[in-house]
Amino acid sequence: MKLKRSERIVVMTEYLLNNPNKLIPLTYFVTKFNQAKSSISEDIHIIKTGFKEENIGEVKTLAGVSGGVIFTPTLVEEDARKILDDFIEKISEGDRLLAGGYIFMSDIVGNPSLMNKLGRVIATVYKNKEIDAVVTVATKGIPVAYAIASILNKPVITIRRDNKVTEGTTVAINYVSGSTKKIETMILSKRSLNNHSKVLLVDDFMRGGGVLTGMESLMNEFDVEVIGKVILTQCYDSPREHENDYLYLSKIENIDEYNGSFDVKIGNVIEKLKEVEKEDLTNE
Amino acid sequence: MKLKRSERIVVMTEYLLNNPNKLIPLTYFVTKFNQAKSSISEDIHIIKTGFKEENIGEVKTLAGVSGGVIFTPTLVEEDARKILDDFIEKISEGDRLLAGGYIFMSDIVGNPSLMNKLGRVIATVYKNKEIDAVVTVATKGIPVAYAIASILNKPVITIRRDNKVTEGTTVAINYVSGSTKKIETMILSKRSLNNHSKVLLVDDFMRGGGVLTGMESLMNEFDVEVIGKVILTQCYDSPREHENDYLYLSKIENIDEYNGSFDVKIGNVIEKLKEVEKEDLTNE
Repeated sequence: MKLKRSERIVVMTEYLLNNPNKLIPLTYFVTKFNQAKSSISEDIHIIKTGFKEENIGEVKTLAGVSGGVIFTPTLVEEDARKILDDFIEKISEGDRLLAGGYIFMSDIVGNPSLMNKLGRVIATVYKNKEIDAVVTVATKGIPVAYAIASILNKPVITIRRDNKVTEGTTVAINYVSGSTKKIETMILSKRSLNNHSKVLLVDDFMRGGGVLTGMESLMNEFDVEVIGKVILTQCYDSPREHENDYLYLSKIENIDEYNGSFDVKIGNVIEKLKEVEKEDLTNE
Repeated sequence: MKLKRSERIVVMTEYLLNNPNKLIPLTYFVTKFNQAKSSISEDIHIIKTGFKEENIGEVKTLAGVSGGVIFTPTLVEEDARKILDDFIEKISEGDRLLAGGYIFMSDIVGNPSLMNKLGRVIATVYKNKEIDAVVTVATKGIPVAYAIASILNKPVITIRRDNKVTEGTTVAINYVSGSTKKIETMILSKRSLNNHSKVLLVDDFMRGGGVLTGMESLMNEFDVEVIGKVILTQCYDSPREHENDYLYLSKIENIDEYNGSFDVKIGNVIEKLKEVEKEDLTNE
């Protein structure tokens, strides 16, 4: 059965959404739907307009032999705020304060829809950067790392805390945990990363900052360039806070273990989004 | 700016795709686009036809006060075969055989696009089952667990190997690794799972079958019902193979450590997909 134009647009929309940041030659659609290139171009224009009006993302068409269409999911500040407010509200709800001032986050990290949305916020911050891989450390940074990498269309590399035979030859570093002052280990398979790759570091929680420092020294061993650093939740007393060289989506303050209360607020993500918007305006 | 009909369809398509297995009241679109319910229904019919023709998934409309539209991503056998062939090819490529007959899989598991596609194959097998949560064990089962759970619109629960203060009160079990015969531990936060939940167990690799048995006994402690069990890659000598009570996407055989060679083939997933298709035909 030959699809009607509106049905064809539905199918093309699905294809673009499921293949973000990937150059799709127009001939792919021309062949698939047996349509003239001009009709396909008009269809893409309609999708572009719909996506633009609803702030779903950018559809770019590149002319020439190696040309095609490429879809980059993004969002605007207003939508990012809604997602972050929902994230903050979820952290504020329920009985999350654990012994030692730690916060129970497993259920929040276990929400795939929320992780995908936060991934989209983060991917928007880094949309103009060249990134070869998203690097995270087991375990709770993994979901958001995949959400970001799905959008950026790049691999995820997971640093482990334990050495496994299934990793082959590994590189290990020791670091001092910022909060517990214990010596911990990070291990990464030697063949995971090529030299001179550009990477984005992602973790779920920062307190003493030791994990992030550990990740950075491990990246040094692999001779790769760290393009950005992302933390989902930063704890009040992080000694690295003044550095502002990393993105954090939320911040926990005023932990009162006696009353089981704490405050949560949005991190520095809105200002980072504004910087990207400004960049885009300058480049236009 | 008011959207044209075709642009509106683009936006509705995106919304359905990003909210799988979620009932969306028609009034949501009616209000959003300021359109009559009849126009929105026609739009949905167009999306439904496009999705059906291209085997993207099922769009169901439910009438009545609590009615609305619900999108379930699925795929057909032919598309599943393409995804599985690609998965098998990736496992066959390169120098993956490690000491002890283990296979290096980190780069394959680190490919978000492939994990999302495999997640869609698995979600299709379980699309008619009631599932409350996807349960996996750190580390390499996590990506595909999130891919499945994103589609099913359910949470992911991650069992750990080590006890962390951030988990609060935990339940731990010991199990014997089927391949190394060592005693290993699995830990799950007590508040992760409600009694009588229905769960899908997911892991990346099965050799001796000890991890899966361990997961099952841990689930017993939580008094939950295991609806299905999924393994990405099963190794040749798995003693549980005859049971056929779990889904495995690929199978590794004839490991020759001396020559560094092995064979990979598709697991029992195609027959499981055929069973679901048969179920659907019976229910129609």
